[in-house]
Amino acid sequence: MIVILKQNTTEAQLNNFTGWLASQGLDVHISRGSYETVIGLIGDTSKVDEELVKSLEMVESVRRISDPFKSANRKFHPDDSVVKVDAEGKVAFGGGRFGVIAGPCSVETKEQIISVAGDVKKAGAVMLRGGAFKPRTSPYDFQGLGAEGIRLLLEAKKETGLPIITEILSITHIELFEDIDVIQVGARNMQNFELLKELGRLKKTILLKRGLANTLKELLMSAEYIMSGGNENVILCERGIRTFDNTYTRNTLDLSAVPVLKELTHLPVIVDPSHAVGSSKYVESMALAAVAAGADGIMTEVHNDPLKALCDGAQSLTPEQFDRMMSKINMVRQAVAK
Amino acid sequence: MIVILKQNTTEAQLNNFTGWLASQGLDVHISRGSYETVIGLIGDTSKVDEELVKSLEMVESVRRISDPFKSANRKFHPDDSVVKVDAEGKVAFGGGRFGVIAGPCSVETKEQIISVAGDVKKAGAVMLRGGAFKPRTSPYDFQGLGAEGIRLLLEAKKETGLPIITEILSITHIELFEDIDVIQVGARNMQNFELLKELGRLKKTILLKRGLANTLKELLMSAEYIMSGGNENVILCERGIRTFDNTYTRNTLDLSAVPVLKELTHLPVIVDPSHAVGSSKYVESMALAAVAAGADGIMTEVHNDPLKALCDGAQSLTPEQFDRMMSKINMVRQAVAK
Amino acid sequence: MIVILKQNTTEAQLNNFTGWLASQGLDVHISRGSYETVIGLIGDTSKVDEELVKSLEMVESVRRISDPFKSANRKFHPDDSVVKVDAEGKVAFGGGRFGVIAGPCSVETKEQIISVAGDVKKAGAVMLRGGAFKPRTSPYDFQGLGAEGIRLLLEAKKETGLPIITEILSITHIELFEDIDVIQVGARNMQNFELLKELGRLKKTILLKRGLANTLKELLMSAEYIMSGGNENVILCERGIRTFDNTYTRNTLDLSAVPVLKELTHLPVIVDPSHAVGSSKYVESMALAAVAAGADGIMTEVHNDPLKALCDGAQSLTPEQFDRMMSKINMVRQAVAK
Amino acid sequence: MIVILKQNTTEAQLNNFTGWLASQGLDVHISRGSYETVIGLIGDTSKVDEELVKSLEMVESVRRISDPFKSANRKFHPDDSVVKVDAEGKVAFGGGRFGVIAGPCSVETKEQIISVAGDVKKAGAVMLRGGAFKPRTSPYDFQGLGAEGIRLLLEAKKETGLPIITEILSITHIELFEDIDVIQVGARNMQNFELLKELGRLKKTILLKRGLANTLKELLMSAEYIMSGGNENVILCERGIRTFDNTYTRNTLDLSAVPVLKELTHLPVIVDPSHAVGSSKYVESMALAAVAAGADGIMTEVHNDPLKALCDGAQSLTPEQFDRMMSKINMVRQAVAK
Repeated sequence: MIVILKQNTTEAQLNNFTGWLASQGLDVHISRGSYETVIGLIGDTSKVDEELVKSLEMVESVRRISDPFKSANRKFHPDDSVVKVDAEGKVAFGGGRFGVIAGPCSVETKEQIISVAGDVKKAGAVMLRGGAFKPRTSPYDFQGLGAEGIRLLLEAKKETGLPIITEILSITHIELFEDIDVIQVGARNMQNFELLKELGRLKKTILLKRGLANTLKELLMSAEYIMSGGNENVILCERGIRTFDNTYTRNTLDLSAVPVLKELTHLPVIVDPSHAVGSSKYVESMALAAVAAGADGIMTEVHNDPLKALCDGAQSLTPEQFDRMMSKINMVRQAVAK
Repeated sequence: MIVILKQNTTEAQLNNFTGWLASQGLDVHISRGSYETVIGLIGDTSKVDEELVKSLEMVESVRRISDPFKSANRKFHPDDSVVKVDAEGKVAFGGGRFGVIAGPCSVETKEQIISVAGDVKKAGAVMLRGGAFKPRTSPYDFQGLGAEGIRLLLEAKKETGLPIITEILSITHIELFEDIDVIQVGARNMQNFELLKELGRLKKTILLKRGLANTLKELLMSAEYIMSGGNENVILCERGIRTFDNTYTRNTLDLSAVPVLKELTHLPVIVDPSHAVGSSKYVESMALAAVAAGADGIMTEVHNDPLKALCDGAQSLTPEQFDRMMSKINMVRQAVAK
Repeated sequence: MIVILKQNTTEAQLNNFTGWLASQGLDVHISRGSYETVIGLIGDTSKVDEELVKSLEMVESVRRISDPFKSANRKFHPDDSVVKVDAEGKVAFGGGRFGVIAGPCSVETKEQIISVAGDVKKAGAVMLRGGAFKPRTSPYDFQGLGAEGIRLLLEAKKETGLPIITEILSITHIELFEDIDVIQVGARNMQNFELLKELGRLKKTILLKRGLANTLKELLMSAEYIMSGGNENVILCERGIRTFDNTYTRNTLDLSAVPVLKELTHLPVIVDPSHAVGSSKYVESMALAAVAAGADGIMTEVHNDPLKALCDGAQSLTPEQFDRMMSKINMVRQAVAK
Repeated sequence: MIVILKQNTTEAQLNNFTGWLASQGLDVHISRGSYETVIGLIGDTSKVDEELVKSLEMVESVRRISDPFKSANRKFHPDDSVVKVDAEGKVAFGGGRFGVIAGPCSVETKEQIISVAGDVKKAGAVMLRGGAFKPRTSPYDFQGLGAEGIRLLLEAKKETGLPIITEILSITHIELFEDIDVIQVGARNMQNFELLKELGRLKKTILLKRGLANTLKELLMSAEYIMSGGNENVILCERGIRTFDNTYTRNTLDLSAVPVLKELTHLPVIVDPSHAVGSSKYVESMALAAVAAGADGIMTEVHNDPLKALCDGAQSLTPEQFDRMMSKINMVRQAVAK
């Protein structure tokens, strides 16, 4: 950690500060310039509270040199992690293992979920997604079927053999997720630290979505909450960020997050184009772009909702569109793998 | 609600759509232009799922005319709400009632919290703030004293008579907050909807902070989660948003949120400059600006932490700086009230 | 154009407003709701100043239904434009014509530019880029060779036959660009409207880069400045936008801009990954992603700068890295074209 | 300047790099950590191209310690600059000199501009603003009266004695501004470096507005372009930035820019609330907030446009609203000055 002090820092302030650092077991290396003084901290700085140091009046800025994430850090774990969804690893992500997760936005009826599950399985999806608990901006919007939705997802699993992923909204629901294969933490809960800590105590695979306004470093720190609790089965997911231009697309899909994350961490990185763009017509091109960028998987919405089918299209793809996209995904995978 | 359809929408699609709307009890008014068709929905549109409609392929855009928030909406409640902190309303916000909330970032020791409480009370603060459960980006950073922190806050209340506000991080901690006067929902939990629903079942006053990347409409919808559950004692708080330039300040304080919110809602609006700017040297000017902008209160950090005092300054103000700021706040209040 | 009026608009205000609209040759269609009044404007609304209408106190919001761009609008020109770089169209973009533009960030010496030109031609680039006039944040940074840089680019053209693209910074330099094949308008000048008007009077192809904080609609309006002047040879370029997280990459490449623009306009859309990510290690994956997303071309930096070569890497690719990327680009093109 | 190298940097790369630095007259101070190597550059680093260094593969990050701006830097010029508008300094900004600039968005007729000039003078404005050349997103929108607008502004000056400020859009118009007192560089031209260089050759006062997506450091670097050319009469202006929530306001007014800029530079800082909020109803509260934050001046729109008056309100204030605001501004000035 490097701390840059202001020009007008007094000798007394400097001594107080280095004394405090010493009391934390840290050596310092001081370089004085004409306008600033630079202090290099030597020793285990992972326990130093960066915010606290930055808040000191005499401090101009702080630069952490070692990344604050450890378990997720590729520096300490150079090989890709292969995160398994089932015990035998029939379905897995990372280290060359790629897969597509698909399903409806919300679970609605038994017929719907089993029908979509059958369709996406046939097209090559390796896992079924479907919302049981839905985070909605408005309390007046449909909040999902809840526990009943989870029951229907498990029926679809029994029927098709596809493992299941669904989103958790509250620490108090954890036991309902016992038979779910992968628990999804949505964008809005990426920094619900108490929930992350609890998920760190499980053995289950966690899919952690990037928050709408969270940096990649914060995403990795949230993964760290889960991993430092003992659960290293974490898959990261880019799903679009909030920017000044969310007119034609709901959010802005940040695909450079894929190569950046894969450099910083050994964890698998997948992409959800459906939520990022919010309109089915852009999903295929963004899914292909994500595969070309090196993503370890794609998660997308597929529906067979009568109203949507009626009106010809939606944020979700139809099973036919999904099938066509799967063929193209396979071709792009082959092109970039060469 | 106005729905604009695309140029190439077929008659059959249009009929299917209006049929679906009719099944929800809505009349429609259709205007056909040369390039688009505009449908006006007549009836109670509050139950119509805007996202669902927007996701239809034939829909170019959707414009909700009635605001989606009701309980918080000034249109249905033209007078300012006065939100009381205690039963008699000795401390209250809104409708001309203004107050300053102050205290340390984290509760650390009994001596610290009682000493700061005494200082801020003397300078004119009406409520004591202090973090017991701290949301931290890194699992390796100090997470607060937890239940013990709450106990110490209650001791400070006994000592000074100041009501207490502190942040909640998890639905599972609610019972610990029984004797706390105001429960704070932090920026990261603004869309933790399960928590908001639970707080809606309490009678206690809730301070709801705007999320780092949340729109004002989303803030009001989150207030709506609490209010629609039956708890109308909500205070809103602007605390800075994330933008492209967070170099010199931690976030960007959005002060136009104050007049905009006060136009949209009857709820009180306060401002927390400390977290927005992240550096004590900018706190006073931003606090005064917030008062000039019409805020119903200010929440700020004041410390007597030895290290910070030692190093002369921090994100928090010293008691002396706070005292000086209070005098200026009073003068600006008088200037704008005239 | 739809104008939504506020609840408290008086009959007199409404009459004044519709009278003013009538004086501009517009009919109106008025729908009164319980909380708002909606006015539909019928006739040629392209001359109505949206900002002016929006600024009226009685107006709650304005929604332009017809897009404000015409020449660039795909609605009036359904087929892709094929924009030619040379008279015969040996090099062209759009409508199935794809190409890669490459070259150094800055032109430095005759040897450098001719050597890089030869390298990129061999690898399959169809045009040479190189900065002669450089827009630099600091007046103390290298500002490019200027007119001499242009002369060197033309020598490289003579040597290799590659057409040339280079950036213009000022209206006063236009005559220096007489023999340049494509004039580039950089991100910082996307809304330098006087420059755009002047370029609209030329016959030369213009590459228009999206500004760092400009919406896609603004990009199209800037293209409209050039096209409405009579020059329809415009190529659009996505090159990354400014967001809250520009830590690991210089900007955030917005690849969904590709399918969105291709839906809105008939103009070709290319992508510059080098400036967006700012580091050569992410260029290849983003170039491949752009191709998979449907871009009509890629523009990238390639160097043979001794310092950079020395230090092994840079924002620019080495000729070897570029050659390898070209092979992969071709494979992804084939995969998505199927 | 501190350069942090990556873990895997070889000795040979390091030697090449330090050799290159030495060739630029810089000494280096190297500290090796277990994961990174930190190089401190000693000497005059103002000529070192930060982008170039950052682009090297072996470089993890670069931190400039000395600010890259010099003429504008408060470190080298601790006292506030007082920037005079006229030779005798009857109107001036900075160092305790405060003033309000007002006038219509666009100059339309002689009657209009003289009437508004009279109104704002009476209410206490010290300078008249009015657009002659208007930067418009659409080529089909009104572009201002141009040279005729400037002529009308000068008539209003003759009539009222108020000095004049108006915006320049092109380097080719400079001679038209000969009798104008202050030339405004608008947000879209903040990084039109060729224009800035040209303005640096004048003796006239320049008002430099912050770009919609420009950092405060970039604003200071643009001031540096003007100042390094020899013209030190620069006034900075905050006018709102682009963020994810520009629903109710056109942009987000960043008032913490005021104390931050006043710490970094000796130049005066004024605030334009009209353009930031885009609606007259929020102008007064934001103007008062800006004054409370310590701004050296306010620039605001005042109209007497018949349509706007007709419709009761606009982005611009009416003369009556302006008069009322002026009284409150004076009271807040007194409150914060105490």
